[in-house]
Amino acid sequence: MPDSAVEPRLGDAFGAALLDAFAGGRGTHVTERDDGFVDVMDATMYFLEPDLWSDAWPGHDEAALDLVHGRILDVGAGAGRHSLALQTRGHEPVALDVSPGAVEVCRRRGVRHTFLGSIEEFADSDPPLFDAAVLMGNNLSLLGSPERSGSMLGTLRRLLHPAGTIVGACLDPYLTDDPVHLAYHQQNRERGRSPGQLTLRVRYRGLAGDWFDWLLMSPDELAVIADRAGWRLDDVTDPDPSYLAVLRPA
Amino acid sequence: MPDSAVEPRLGDAFGAALLDAFAGGRGTHVTERDDGFVDVMDATMYFLEPDLWSDAWPGHDEAALDLVHGRILDVGAGAGRHSLALQTRGHEPVALDVSPGAVEVCRRRGVRHTFLGSIEEFADSDPPLFDAAVLMGNNLSLLGSPERSGSMLGTLRRLLHPAGTIVGACLDPYLTDDPVHLAYHQQNRERGRSPGQLTLRVRYRGLAGDWFDWLLMSPDELAVIADRAGWRLDDVTDPDPSYLAVLRPA
Repeated sequence: MPDSAVEPRLGDAFGAALLDAFAGGRGTHVTERDDGFVDVMDATMYFLEPDLWSDAWPGHDEAALDLVHGRILDVGAGAGRHSLALQTRGHEPVALDVSPGAVEVCRRRGVRHTFLGSIEEFADSDPPLFDAAVLMGNNLSLLGSPERSGSMLGTLRRLLHPAGTIVGACLDPYLTDDPVHLAYHQQNRERGRSPGQLTLRVRYRGLAGDWFDWLLMSPDELAVIADRAGWRLDDVTDPDPSYLAVLRPA
Repeated sequence: MPDSAVEPRLGDAFGAALLDAFAGGRGTHVTERDDGFVDVMDATMYFLEPDLWSDAWPGHDEAALDLVHGRILDVGAGAGRHSLALQTRGHEPVALDVSPGAVEVCRRRGVRHTFLGSIEEFADSDPPLFDAAVLMGNNLSLLGSPERSGSMLGTLRRLLHPAGTIVGACLDPYLTDDPVHLAYHQQNRERGRSPGQLTLRVRYRGLAGDWFDWLLMSPDELAVIADRAGWRLDDVTDPDPSYLAVLRPA
């Protein structure tokens, strides 16, 4: 590193990218992993209409909308594409995100019910119970780590009716032959972490978000994690490498 | 930073992006500045045919090809689009790049004469003199810093016939109102650097290139730097914000 190199300014990098894409830019942002791997995402993919989702998202993304009914919580709503699609179907979802920029974009796009904060903060506000929670865009990875997953799954239990379901998507980390990713899995094993536990941050222009853990799980791993927290993996599509999972109370 | 965060692996990140784009990918790579600013580039833009250059490059990019004749050195040739276009016009340019991946891509695309290394290394090989050097794609910024610019301009003098010309492009750093860039200019002033002197590195997937200095100059700044090294800024197009410059021996 040159002596001059400094850390980027901490801020809502993901939200800034969404706001720029909403304003007509591309909002192309960087996801940086703690091994130095960088990946690039075009934020316009979060603004596609449902009939174009299959250009950018797994095929099950739209199918998931048919699996939820009643009062729905959209966890990690981002630019609100699932909440908007659910509103079009006559639902009144609540779009939750920790990114102020994401929640702002949801509001401007017409999402009627939003919450800025974590699901723990939302649960503490004692909202009426939900029939379903959706964690699309691979947001099941928000479970973070096997150790912390119980806390989030418990909070979802608290937010849902006794028979409420979780419908979410996740990437199977084992469906790669990329040596960079395989090396990361191995490094995770050596430091006692789940192979698919990624430590990431989003960077956009001069901003970087906080580092966070993003847990890729195989369906089998998800089943074990769910079981430990009182949930049952009821249905799962073939990973390709993303899969759709339905969790029901055990 | 989390304890786990490490520096990316050092390597030919730019060349790896070009090789992936040549193989049909997008080669989307990240340029990281030492203040933490990140920018994203799609490497397919380096593979456009001349009639599509104006989609991605300044209008003067193709015009520059008309300004050079005889034996031509393409400095920082990248994927070789200028060398290939010059070959189509009947020239026999030498494509020079420090990136092994870039030179490999040039060769595979049919550039007949390539050199892997710096212009200093090339000059040390005592090649026959050139009539012109092209530094397109804003490659005049390879001058690096006002202090080091004399060395490169002197080497180009050594490589060129006494009446040889340099045709190059550069971004004018002052044609921005972006607060992130203006803050960087100010920080440069405070550390005694030229406002447009950027310390950058390229990152692509798991790789990062070396940090290097990339000097954005206004036409006036370029004129001063050129003059100091025995060159005269003979012609310049309006910056928009990139401009085309012709340097002739003073």
